[in-house]
Parts: sequence; structure tokens; C-alpha cells
Amino acid sequence: MTSDSDADPDPSTLADRVQSGDLRIHELEEHADYDAAAEARRLLVERETDADLEAVGDYTFDAEQADPNIENMIGAAQVPMGVVGPVPIDGGAADGEHYLPLATTEGALLASVNRGLSVIRSAGGADARVTKNGMTRAPVFRVDGVAEAAEVVEWVDDNTDALREAAESTTSHGELIDVEPYVVGDSVYLRFAYDTKDAMGMNMATIATGEACEVVENETPADLVALSGNLCSDKKPAAVNAVEGRGRSVTADVVIPGELVEERLHTTAEAIVEANTRKNLTGSAKAGSLGFNAHAANVVAAAFLATGQDEAQVVEGANAITTMDTRGSEDGGPADLYASVSLASLEVGTVGGGTKLPTQAEALDILGLRGGGDPPGSNADALAEIIAVGALAGELSLLAALSSRHLASAHEDLGR
Amino acid sequence: MTSDSDADPDPSTLADRVQSGDLRIHELEEHADYDAAAEARRLLVERETDADLEAVGDYTFDAEQADPNIENMIGAAQVPMGVVGPVPIDGGAADGEHYLPLATTEGALLASVNRGLSVIRSAGGADARVTKNGMTRAPVFRVDGVAEAAEVVEWVDDNTDALREAAESTTSHGELIDVEPYVVGDSVYLRFAYDTKDAMGMNMATIATGEACEVVENETPADLVALSGNLCSDKKPAAVNAVEGRGRSVTADVVIPGELVEERLHTTAEAIVEANTRKNLTGSAKAGSLGFNAHAANVVAAAFLATGQDEAQVVEGANAITTMDTRGSEDGGPADLYASVSLASLEVGTVGGGTKLPTQAEALDILGLRGGGDPPGSNADALAEIIAVGALAGELSLLAALSSRHLASAHEDLGR
Amino acid sequence: MTSDSDADPDPSTLADRVQSGDLRIHELEEHADYDAAAEARRLLVERETDADLEAVGDYTFDAEQADPNIENMIGAAQVPMGVVGPVPIDGGAADGEHYLPLATTEGALLASVNRGLSVIRSAGGADARVTKNGMTRAPVFRVDGVAEAAEVVEWVDDNTDALREAAESTTSHGELIDVEPYVVGDSVYLRFAYDTKDAMGMNMATIATGEACEVVENETPADLVALSGNLCSDKKPAAVNAVEGRGRSVTADVVIPGELVEERLHTTAEAIVEANTRKNLTGSAKAGSLGFNAHAANVVAAAFLATGQDEAQVVEGANAITTMDTRGSEDGGPADLYASVSLASLEVGTVGGGTKLPTQAEALDILGLRGGGDPPGSNADALAEIIAVGALAGELSLLAALSSRHLASAHEDLGR
Amino acid sequence: MTSDSDADPDPSTLADRVQSGDLRIHELEEHADYDAAAEARRLLVERETDADLEAVGDYTFDAEQADPNIENMIGAAQVPMGVVGPVPIDGGAADGEHYLPLATTEGALLASVNRGLSVIRSAGGADARVTKNGMTRAPVFRVDGVAEAAEVVEWVDDNTDALREAAESTTSHGELIDVEPYVVGDSVYLRFAYDTKDAMGMNMATIATGEACEVVENETPADLVALSGNLCSDKKPAAVNAVEGRGRSVTADVVIPGELVEERLHTTAEAIVEANTRKNLTGSAKAGSLGFNAHAANVVAAAFLATGQDEAQVVEGANAITTMDTRGSEDGGPADLYASVSLASLEVGTVGGGTKLPTQAEALDILGLRGGGDPPGSNADALAEIIAVGALAGELSLLAALSSRHLASAHEDLGR
Repeated sequence: MTSDSDADPDPSTLADRVQSGDLRIHELEEHADYDAAAEARRLLVERETDADLEAVGDYTFDAEQADPNIENMIGAAQVPMGVVGPVPIDGGAADGEHYLPLATTEGALLASVNRGLSVIRSAGGADARVTKNGMTRAPVFRVDGVAEAAEVVEWVDDNTDALREAAESTTSHGELIDVEPYVVGDSVYLRFAYDTKDAMGMNMATIATGEACEVVENETPADLVALSGNLCSDKKPAAVNAVEGRGRSVTADVVIPGELVEERLHTTAEAIVEANTRKNLTGSAKAGSLGFNAHAANVVAAAFLATGQDEAQVVEGANAITTMDTRGSEDGGPADLYASVSLASLEVGTVGGGTKLPTQAEALDILGLRGGGDPPGSNADALAEIIAVGALAGELSLLAALSSRHLASAHEDLGR
Repeated sequence: MTSDSDADPDPSTLADRVQSGDLRIHELEEHADYDAAAEARRLLVERETDADLEAVGDYTFDAEQADPNIENMIGAAQVPMGVVGPVPIDGGAADGEHYLPLATTEGALLASVNRGLSVIRSAGGADARVTKNGMTRAPVFRVDGVAEAAEVVEWVDDNTDALREAAESTTSHGELIDVEPYVVGDSVYLRFAYDTKDAMGMNMATIATGEACEVVENETPADLVALSGNLCSDKKPAAVNAVEGRGRSVTADVVIPGELVEERLHTTAEAIVEANTRKNLTGSAKAGSLGFNAHAANVVAAAFLATGQDEAQVVEGANAITTMDTRGSEDGGPADLYASVSLASLEVGTVGGGTKLPTQAEALDILGLRGGGDPPGSNADALAEIIAVGALAGELSLLAALSSRHLASAHEDLGR
Repeated sequence: MTSDSDADPDPSTLADRVQSGDLRIHELEEHADYDAAAEARRLLVERETDADLEAVGDYTFDAEQADPNIENMIGAAQVPMGVVGPVPIDGGAADGEHYLPLATTEGALLASVNRGLSVIRSAGGADARVTKNGMTRAPVFRVDGVAEAAEVVEWVDDNTDALREAAESTTSHGELIDVEPYVVGDSVYLRFAYDTKDAMGMNMATIATGEACEVVENETPADLVALSGNLCSDKKPAAVNAVEGRGRSVTADVVIPGELVEERLHTTAEAIVEANTRKNLTGSAKAGSLGFNAHAANVVAAAFLATGQDEAQVVEGANAITTMDTRGSEDGGPADLYASVSLASLEVGTVGGGTKLPTQAEALDILGLRGGGDPPGSNADALAEIIAVGALAGELSLLAALSSRHLASAHEDLGR
Repeated sequence: MTSDSDADPDPSTLADRVQSGDLRIHELEEHADYDAAAEARRLLVERETDADLEAVGDYTFDAEQADPNIENMIGAAQVPMGVVGPVPIDGGAADGEHYLPLATTEGALLASVNRGLSVIRSAGGADARVTKNGMTRAPVFRVDGVAEAAEVVEWVDDNTDALREAAESTTSHGELIDVEPYVVGDSVYLRFAYDTKDAMGMNMATIATGEACEVVENETPADLVALSGNLCSDKKPAAVNAVEGRGRSVTADVVIPGELVEERLHTTAEAIVEANTRKNLTGSAKAGSLGFNAHAANVVAAAFLATGQDEAQVVEGANAITTMDTRGSEDGGPADLYASVSLASLEVGTVGGGTKLPTQAEALDILGLRGGGDPPGSNADALAEIIAVGALAGELSLLAALSSRHLASAHEDLGR
């Protein structure tokens, strides 16, 4: 997909050619450089709609740089980015003080998270740990019936090494952790889980699994129907992810001294615990939810957008459980607050995807996590831990606001 | 939050003052104009981290314009935006040909959606309808026990008009549709549903419900614990939304002639139906999912980002069911394909939120849907319908690719 | 299905005729009285297997009496029945002291429930309320596509009265409460909810809905595909029931004084609350569950079996949320315990189904709830409330045992 | 719990003593033999209520025999039992022709299942396989926070052998398969899975896990809060069971020739597939269900009741997915029907629990599966496979009835 060798035609002429049917809209990069192609598309869209795409066209990266990330490019969406923090984190991979960049259009969100981080900071910082890691892909195979399905399951259990060899032949970094079979009638699903190091790893897992599927098809009666059979499960709200995890399973927690709860959050540990129990636990239970939290997705979405993650994976990022508990104060004062958020399936990377784009790369630089980590995987681990701390701050702040009854007024003041 | 009357200090000096503890990071807008405040923050972050924030600082909107959308602003994230289409839509609100702007960093996504739209266009366009509409907010109240809870439920059932009056007193547009009570022990949840017209409406619903809560507290023994009790349910994967809907419940569908399926999607209706059944229906069933689709969230996320929607609400946007079925071809040729996607809880607006920012407003202009519709609500309905058609195109294209076994290779060619 | 007019042949001869292929196994009642037919079937099975069916044949009811309940009868399963209580209940329908009959094979269950009831009794009894009531049936219709689906939804919303008239024409007791439409692609589901008074009401709802479906088919383009489209949802674990209820939504609760918790349950309110939060709330959350309780299904199953309910509906009976909270003790002693269980979808009746069989009718007599109530529905309401109190007792007792760590040893002592 | 050495007092005197407060209702077995104690309890209940417990008292087993199964016994519930079949099964453990005993009060159920089995028999019988096996118990531990949780997880991963040794020290049959850790804030859940051979195994798993918990507490900072933390998950509708299985994961399937579908089920493969897709797949999807079937729980409940299984575990037994697909007919006739049902978590045993009671033991004799199998576990496997075939028959028959529109009329004719 490189521009052709002709003298670059001007964008207006290119737009003419598309309008006349001589060119198709996705072929423009074959006839002009990437920026000119994007300009031609803007012209085309402007002619055919009432839009004026001046702002969209005022992007800061080279269009060619975005080629791995988009097709039919016309420019960029610009989303306000801010920072919150700094906050000290004691993580398995993250360490020390961090500012967290967040991009969003939801007024009051950064103020809320920042308030939470400020309280966490005053409490000495948060702990965070990745407790499980594995990017999954689960192809579905057709078999003749359950008798054959049982054979396939047995073969897979006996031949994980062969599948590993095939899968890992496609990647220099990824490692196959496990293959779990599931049978439904004449369908067999194999959930492959990989350690994809600092990459989010969806594509790595897909390609590796594709290779392993060839082995399955060669050695068993199973026929591949779809390389993804939804037991993965990517970009869908699914219990398999909430229970077993996907990407990183990460928890952040903190103990807030009772005095801080009162002075800074204007409420008590008991009131926050009550709000958490009635809302995040019991309310979510009654709602048939997989998300037992207040608004973890807000922080996940904003951090994903700032750092070049896959926005559609905010879906899995919302599989989070927030717990709040009182802990006895040592000196007879108000009870301390134990607060945690556990994100079951946070899919993040510091290489690949959108991480190379200029604003996203700069945001990763704010975190000191651009590119591959040492050891491999440590940067993505750290990113997961920092986002978890951000989510924890958001939970603390919103629950405090709710238990102080000023959610609505906060929005009235700060946003709309 | 306006800049003070002093001669504007330069950003470097402001950054110094924050570093010295003289100012706090979120107070900068009180001492400088919004752009200078953002610059001061960038300087501060650059000094304290290894980041160079040149690209982040190269944004196209006035910082003050973004004030309702963010705090602690340092600049903007830029995400590549492209267009797909045009596609003819016969909707309840949407009509005629539309280009759909999408912003994403996932390579191959736009190419995939565009392929689907192109096939839909060749098939004469898609139908789409909003079949339900209601933005919800569900406060949780504390009562003494179930005896009192039963009284509250009865009072609410008898006094919906009083709640409506209170709720609607806070808004010029919104209308209360219904209040549904739920009892769990000594907690009572009231799920308020509103027609919020062209606004996504979360804040409108929150404020209106806050007012109604005062009536409940005055007239019943119930005490408000949290203005959101998670039966809403906002930004969490929850069955209540997948079943009952939130925002718009919208379906798009199309019948693709069998010849088109073969020529353009390089597969058959039967193969697509099989992939859909084994993956999207049975696979999601086995995964304990609320999302019975291939990747609807991809299109929802990219359209949300382009048009200024709330990215965290991609979570609810993933509550989608894709169906595929063969239909008899009239002329004895290959079977036609009926394809649909039903998004249960798509929360969109064309006013408020991020819709006023320049790139987002331009994207709405591409759709002809910027601002309030005539009649009110019709622009948001149309936006929902168009996104649903985009999601349908994405489903068609990915299922065709899967049933042709080239998902992995598509990624290898186009993205990474 | 009456015995024929020939002199009754003896069971052995009948068994011969089935073995020789002259008769089919389900035709025996056409050739002998019901008891002889059952005996013939026992003989047949004894000849063809290694079984001796003496105990199965020693049943206490007239075989003809069981004709509405079973086909191909050979006798009866006998399940040990016991009683627990008495316990004072202050319900919306139940009142005064009640023994609860339970039939089970799980050792330690009645001892556990009885311990809980004894503590509730000492605390002055439990409150209970039915907070919602509606038996549902949801047929699924085929339409041409979403355009037609939207028309059907609109027609249904406008013509609920016509549907009510049709539905209620089939029943002398049942009343149509509501019809809720759901659209998925070219399928339209209509969830009909009925007040079926003292009947569990599944068959009543099915028949009434069948009649209403004819109206829908006559007046709209929709074609009925299945009279049950699983949005009902009968005998499946489904969020629609857990959220919206099916049959009775019923809650029981009690406040146990702190001293009683210590003396009788050998633990503290705080310890029970902790066990409930970590197990029933957080543990179930992590399990992707619709049941946030310890073992409500145990009591539901045993009460259903004793009183002639539908054992398969134990599935919906398990959609229960248990809450436990401390409440301040008035006199500075140990904290009191607030305990509740809310069963979202308890489907019970005191007429029809298995309620007329002798042992089941006697069990209903123990409760004083055999047959129709005055007013209609009050007996089934009361049965729901009493079962809820039984479930509450089971929750209290098991959580106390768990927090005292003797679950395993209780089983070792009492059961196996 | 044996009767005391005094001359046995008569039941009436014992009832007097309970009424006067001299004895407690659960202490009667200490003062009389088991049958007299039960009689005394009946007298007591008869005096205090309006019940006459003649039928309840007419049970066929020795009361003492039921001592491991119940406390406070008054007699028995009698539920009509019938047989369906015979049907040929080609299973992993089951083999040959089988009658299936079912106990129920739901009229039309056995007729429906029998019709399905008859069609399966005509099609040559069904295949069935147990594809996964493991009874689980998941204690929950308290830790200080996530830092400690991560340590515990690591310790568990490194010390599975020590846990196995402790767990297996408590049982002569059971084998620990796996331990899977889950972290939520300061709670750690360990899901222990066991091969419990021919026992359903809940108690075995509980006792073994209790022993392993002591090791965890001794070797790590974790404190046990509850021996069951609901990630097991017992008797609750939970995705963890539907996804990962509990007890046996078992599938049964069959191919029904097109002619048989037409002649015997009075419909077509296409019509059944459509009903299954719109109802069991799409309808259950929209309902937020874990059960994608028509009425598998009916067969599970009736078979459980007949064979002495735990009725409350019908809850997990409902986690079933039914698939139906057309298969090309070889001779150009009507399409054949592939039908399957996959029960994710069927918890069955042929030893222990209620299996020793006379009527239940006789029912197991009908199946030839009473007691332990050779090899161990094969009897329970076979029972699971046979129940799965029964469920398959029920699915076939009901879907055929629905697609022929006579569900309501079947109930009108046969039951009520």
C-alpha cells in the first residue's frame, strides 16, 4: 500500500476521481502520499456532506505513521488529555511516584480521580499486583458428534506440547501457557492462553492459534469453523473473562486512615462501606452484573485512550469488583478504610497497537513505560497496576461523593 | 474557574509554583488562561518525568472550550479517524446515504467495516429501528426491613405522578417514562427511566432523579444511600441493560442476495450462518456472555470516539446479539443471507458531552446529526441507527472472514 | 384414558403382552385399572432388568389419583419428610406460628434450618413480604425484519387490552398484568405476566398466552414460532427472572439481638457479616452467579418436594440474595444482626400440580394452606413467605456454622 | 443418636412431653426408636395444626435407615414414579438398552420424554460422553491485602502436592485434580476440584478441602473465613459451573433421519432448528441466561428424585445447552436432524446421599447402577450419560411439540 510512482496528483483531483467512480475511496493511498490521500478524502466527504473537516485535518502525526492503525483515514479525533497524580505505587512491576495521563470528554472525571489519588497519596500510596496473566484465543471446531468430541479433547490433553511448538513457532516473544477444551454438542472450543509479554497480544495470540489449529486439523477429525469461537472472549461482556481472567488480572488496594476519610473525603469508613455494599455488591448482584464497581470503566477508558490501548477492550476492563471494609483504628479514632479494586481482565500493552502514535507514546513516556520492559512483560504489568490504582482512586472518590450525596451537584458544577 | 485578573504569568513560572508547593496542579486555571495552564502542566510533567509532550500540546481546540470535558488538561490525545461508506439506510429516524466516521487504532477495522457496508450497499441498504428508548438512573435507599420496603414499593407505585413532577422540574427536555422498584432485604432500588431526547442523558437523569429522591425521602421512611445503586446500570456489564435496555435499543438488518455473498464475501450464507451459530450464539452461551456478537464493540467504540460519545459506555454498547439466517433464494440460486445485529443498550447523544469539541462536531456534521434533532430525539435515534448499521457491517465482514479462515492473515496484511 | 370394559386382565398377562409387542408400555391404563397397570409395568421392568420394585410399588395413593401427574407410572419415590419450627411469622399473608415440612435426603439440612428457626423464634419471629407477583410466558414470533418488528411492538403497546381479553377468556382466575416486548433481529418476544392467584400458574399462563398469540398472529404480520421463547424463563437460570422476578418475589428478614448471636450461634454479628460479604456477595460476584446466597436452594427444594411444587423450578428458586448487616445494640452490648434473604423468582401454588397428592396435601395442611386462599392468592403468598423464612433460617445457620468453621464436622456428625 | 435404654415410651406420651416443654422436638430419637419418634412427631404436629398425617406416616423404609438423610422425621413424601424407554445408549460408560426411572408431579413430562426416547430408539440410539469430571469446593481466605494475596497465590501454585497430600489423607477414594486461585481485594479463593468416583462427592470434597485449608493456614498468612466461598459453586446458578463444569460435564447426541422427524415428530428438521435457534439460543441470550435449553431441568429433577440425588443440585443441572442442526440426507429426502444436549454441571452419584433408600436404590437397580462401579466412577459416569440422553429426549420432544404448536394442548390433554 505505497503511493505510486506518478507525480503526486493533487487532492482535489483525487477526490474528483473518486466521485466519478474512477477510484475507490480506499485506494487513494495507491495514488498519493498518505497525507494527500487523507486530504482528498476530506475533500470528498466535505463535498458530499455538510461537513467542514478543518479540525479533523489538523492532526499532529504523519499519516503514513498511522497506516498500521487505520484505513480510509481523514485525520484525527482529538480528545482532551489531562494528568492526575502523582501517586506512589508499590507494585509487582510498578514502583515509585506516577502521574497518570487520562483522555476523556466526561467532565468531573479527572477531578474525581485526582481527589482519590490525593487521598491515596496522603495514605502513603497504594499496593498493586498482577495476579494472573494470559491473552486468550479460542477457535471453534466442528466434529461429527460427542463421541468424536471426546476423542479431540483427549488428544488435546495429550498433545499440548505439539500445540505449543506450533503456536510458538509464529512468535519470538509469546509463550503458550495452557489450552483448555470445552465441548458443546458437535462443537469443540479450545481456549489457548498466552503470555504475550509487553504486547496486549490479541493479534499474536490469533496468529499463533491459527498455526496450532492446523495441527489440530491434521491430527484429529476436527474441522476449524472459526478462529475465534467467542470463548476467548474478545470485546464482549463474558463471565469466562470475569471468572478466569484475560490479559492481566490486577488488584490495587490501600488502607485509608479514618482521619483522612473524614477530613478529605468528608464521610466515614462506615458510610463508604455501606454505599459500596448496597450499590456495588448488592445492587450489581440484583442487576445480574459482571461489574461490581462504581465506574472503573471510566478510568480504564480514559487511560486506554491516552496510552493507545484498544478502546473496544474497555468492555472487558469493566469486569471489576470493588471491595470496601472497615479496619480497626489503632488509636481508638474513627475506623480506617480498606479499599480495593480487582480488574479481572485488563488487556494492555506498551508495544504495538496504538502505542506508537505520537500523543499516545508521549503519554506512555509520562508513565516511563513506552516500549518493551525489562524483563519482558514488566512494562505492561506496570501499566496494568497503575491503571488499577487510578480505578481505585475513582472508586474511592465516587463512593465518597455518593455517600456524601453530591454526585449530581458535582456534575452540575463541573460538567454537563 | 476563570483565570484571575493578574497579568498572566508565564507557564514556566506557574510550573515552578506548582513544583514549589505554592500552587496545586488543578488550580492553574485560576491563575492563567486555559491554554497557558495546560502548557504549565505540560512543563511540570516534562520536568518530573522523561516525557516530551510536544504532540500532546499540539491540539486544535481552544483549551477553554474543553473545560466542561476535562480537568487538569495538558493537551489532547489524537486518534486516527477515517470514514466508511456511504451506505443507504432506511431507518425510523435515519434516512438516505451516510458516511460513518470512525476513530480507532486497530488496523483492519475500517477496511473490514467498509467491506461490509459495501456489500450492504450493493444489497440495497440496511433497515434500522430504535425499538426502545430510556436512560436510567437507579438510586438505592435504606429501609428498616422488608415490611417497610413493601410500603415504599406501594407508595412508589401509587405516586409515580409526584415523582414525575419532581424529576421533570429539573429539565426542559427530559421526560420520566417509568419507575421500577426492586427490593433486596433492607435496600430498595428505584430504576427511573427517562426519554432524554437528543442528549445521551446520564447527567440529566441523575439530576432529575436526585430531585425525585427528595420526594421519596420526604414521603416515605426510605433514606437515600446512593444516587446510583447500580441497577441503572452505568458502565458495567449488566444483564438488566442487556434484557431491558438502556439508552437506545436498536436493531439493524439486511438481506444479502446469495450471489453477493459468494462474489463479494467469498463464502456462502450457510457457512456464515454456521459460523454465527457456533461462535456468536453457542460460543457466547458457553462463555456465560451477555454479548452474542463477533465485535460490535469495535464499531461502537470507534464511532463513539469519533462523535464525542462517552467511551466508557462502550461497555453497554457491547450488549449485542447478532443473528444470521438463510433465506430461500427466489430463483433457485444460492441461499440469501438475513443478517441482523440488535444492540440492547446503546447510549448516544448529539448534544452535550464531547459532541461540541471541534473534531467530534465535524464528525457529527459528516452524519448531518450535529445538535438537537427535529423532532427532539430524532438525531440521537438516527445516530443509534447508523452505528447499528456500522456494527452490522462489521459483523458481516468478520463472520465472512472467519468462515473464509482469513482473520489472522487479514491482520498480518493490514495491521499489527 | 380409562380402563377398557373387558374383565381386567392380570398384571402378569399384561406384562407378557407388552413384552410380546402386542401392547405398548404407555397403553396399559387402557386395558387395566391404574394400579394393575402400574403393577404390570413393575413386572415388566423387573423381568427386563435386575430390579426388584417392591418398595416402589408400596405407595400410599390411588394410582388413578396420580394420573394428572405422571404417565407410565410404576409406583412412587419415597423421600424422608420432617418438620422444622415452629416459628412466628409476620407476613403480608402468612401470620402466626408455623411448622415447615421439608422432604430431603441431605443429612444435616433440617437440623441446620431448625437451629436457624429456633434463633429466629427467640428473636421474636421473622417478617416476610411478597413484593412482586407475576407468572410469565414469552412466546417468540418470526417477522420479516426489524421494520416489521417495530410495527409489532407498536401494535402490542397499543392493544394490550385486546390481548388481555383473549388471554383472560381462557381462565376463571388468572389476570394479565403486563406484556413486555423484546426485539432481536427478526424475532419478537412478548413476555406476558399473569396474576395466577393460588396456582403456580405455568399452565394457566401457557394456555392464556396461546389464545393471545392467535390475536397477535391475526392482527400483525408476526408468525408464532414457539409458545415459549425462553424469555419467560422457565426452569433455566436466567437473569430476566433474577432481575424482574417470576412467580413471587419474596423477602424474609429478622434482627437477631447480639446476645442471641453469641449464645445460640456461637459467633458474632461481625463474623457472620464478614462471611456473608466474602462468600455470598464477593464470592458469588467472582463466580459470575445469579445466586448470592449460601444454600437457599436446599430449603426451596425440600419445601417444594414436601408440598407438591414443581421440583424443576428449584432452578429459579435459587435466584436469591442474602444480606447480613450489623445493627447497633441499644445497650452497648454486642452488635445485633440484621439478616435477610430475597428470593426473586419463587414459583409456588397451593392448588393444582402435585398439591393434591396425599402426602403433599397433608404437608400443606401442616401449614394450613391447602387449596385456594381467601382472598385468592393469599395461600400461595403465604407459602412463599414461609419458605422464605425457612431459607432465611438456613442462611443464618450455615453462615454461623461457616464462621465457626464447623461445616465439615457437622456433615461428618450428622450426614454423609 | 440411639434410643435410650428405658422401656420405649409410647408416641403419645412423647408428644405430650414435647408439648409440655420437657423434650425438644429433635431429641425424640434419644427416647424412642426411630419409627416411634416419627410417630410422636406426627402426633405433635397433628395436635398443633389441622393436619392428618396418615399418608405421610405410611412410608416403606425403616425410619432408622433414613437417619443419615434427615432429622426431625415425620414420614415421607411420596412422588409418583414412572419409567421411560428403553433406549439404546452408546456411552463412554453406559452401554446397551436402558429404562430410565423418573419421579415427578408434572403431568405430560414422562409422555414427552418417552416420545423422544422412542424416536431416538428408532434412530438407533444416542451417543453420550462425560467430557470433564470434577467436584469442587472453594474456601475463602482473608489476607492483609493484595501484596499478601499474591504471595498466597504463588505459594499455592508451588505447593499443590502438599495440598493434595492433606486433602487425600481424608478419603480412600477421592483424588485432588487441581487447585485454582482467585483474588478479589483481600480475599483469596481456592477452587479445589476432585475426582470423587461414584460419589456425588460434595461432602468428600468439603472434608478433604478442610484438611488442605489447615495447611494453607499453617504455611501462609491466609486466614480461613469460610470453607465454602461460593466459587465452588454449590446450588447456585453460577457461570463458573456453566463454563468450567462441576460434577460431570456430559453431552448426549443423536442424528434423527428426516423421515423419522416427519413421521414421528410431525415436523421437519428445519422447523426444529428454527425453534431451537429462536428459543433456546437467541431467546436465552436475550434473557441473560446460563441455560440454553427448553426444559432439561425437568428430566434432571425427575431423575434426581427417582435415584436419590440431591434435589437442590437441579440448579446446576439446568446449566445446559441444546443444539439442533440439519444434516444433509443421503438420499435426497428430507434433511436429517442432529440434536444434542450438553449439561455442564451434572452432579450425580450412585453411592451415598439418598441412593441407599429403598425406592431410590430400586430405581438405580432399574438402571443397573446401584453402588460403586467397576472401575470406580463408571457407575456415576453412566448415570450422567443416561440422564443426558433423557434430557435430549425431552428437548427433542418439546421442541417438536412447540414447532407443531401443541404445547398448550398437550398440557390441556394430559396434565394441568
